[in-house]
Amino acid sequence: MKSHRQELWFEIPDRRGFVNITDEVRAVVRDSDVREGLVLVNAMHITASVFVNDDERGLLADYERWLEELAPHEPTSRYRHNETGEDNGDAHLKRQIMGREVVVAITEGRLDFGPWEQIFYGEFDGRRPKRVLVKIIGD
Amino acid sequence: MKSHRQELWFEIPDRRGFVNITDEVRAVVRDSDVREGLVLVNAMHITASVFVNDDERGLLADYERWLEELAPHEPTSRYRHNETGEDNGDAHLKRQIMGREVVVAITEGRLDFGPWEQIFYGEFDGRRPKRVLVKIIGD
Amino acid sequence: MKSHRQELWFEIPDRRGFVNITDEVRAVVRDSDVREGLVLVNAMHITASVFVNDDERGLLADYERWLEELAPHEPTSRYRHNETGEDNGDAHLKRQIMGREVVVAITEGRLDFGPWEQIFYGEFDGRRPKRVLVKIIGD
Repeated sequence: MKSHRQELWFEIPDRRGFVNITDEVRAVVRDSDVREGLVLVNAMHITASVFVNDDERGLLADYERWLEELAPHEPTSRYRHNETGEDNGDAHLKRQIMGREVVVAITEGRLDFGPWEQIFYGEFDGRRPKRVLVKIIGD
Repeated sequence: MKSHRQELWFEIPDRRGFVNITDEVRAVVRDSDVREGLVLVNAMHITASVFVNDDERGLLADYERWLEELAPHEPTSRYRHNETGEDNGDAHLKRQIMGREVVVAITEGRLDFGPWEQIFYGEFDGRRPKRVLVKIIGD
Repeated sequence: MKSHRQELWFEIPDRRGFVNITDEVRAVVRDSDVREGLVLVNAMHITASVFVNDDERGLLADYERWLEELAPHEPTSRYRHNETGEDNGDAHLKRQIMGREVVVAITEGRLDFGPWEQIFYGEFDGRRPKRVLVKIIGD
């Protein structure tokens, strides 16, 4: 069994944002030399997500608006977590909706994806460097 | 390490629906000849889900109503994604609640499940053929 | 390829509660003797979750309140599932928000975590013994 590990770093200039990281993950799969296996892609921070969906600008705007409805940023006093001095209580909730991780099959050395599947990094408390872990196991 | 891959195809006659796919996944596990490992089961389309829950008709109706409350289909103009000519903006949101994938342990050649765990395909934009990927790795 | 399996048992005295299980999972990883691989940690019951987030008391209270807003326990007649004689319809919905499972990388024999990642068991229908499965594969 082979294994391979790489971190991807992001610094989103705003509080929230989505980044298509499919090509970066593809490059790690290539480097791993794994032909058949699984790749785990997970946010290493608890106010960010990794998820699979469509790379369509309107949809990403819909996610932004919808998450803000489900778990509004303001008033920040809404969240007991913010009594610690943070203002990111909402980000911990948004991340649960969008998920921490995806596991993707590797088949014949490639991401085994349907026609529209793309991997995204979702940031809910940005403006500082944060990491995504890519871990591959297989043969 | 062994690996095994199979696609399951579905064509749900309505916009939305849930299908218990546990037996199909079990059959793939059997075909794989893997005794100890992991099976990834994921929707290959971005308006569908794979999830684990109870096969109880009332519960599935509860999910349907609840998802429609959290991300209503109408008015379709509610979603910027629908400006592309689609009417499935809501389906992309519903799928994030229910999830893209499950990873299930294989132990002694079988799905390592609790008493009520069943695997479901959740369709949120049906009336066309769509796929689920089953990928197994192990020994 | 090595594999290792262990169950963790919980009996939460109230209907709902969160338990940090990171140390228990770490102990299983140690016992497995796997240096590079993946660990799957999943609730074996369909009214409970396993998720990764921050061990901060205010945040856990925020999750509790938010989940109760998104899927209220009462009136129990709100859920068709409860027509079966259960009163846990809400628990099946809350569990979908928080998730069934996490998959965590194992690197150099340890959970490959960011600075604040902690694994939690989330109970939404407690007061009886329930299980979490830890399944490890790797080398």
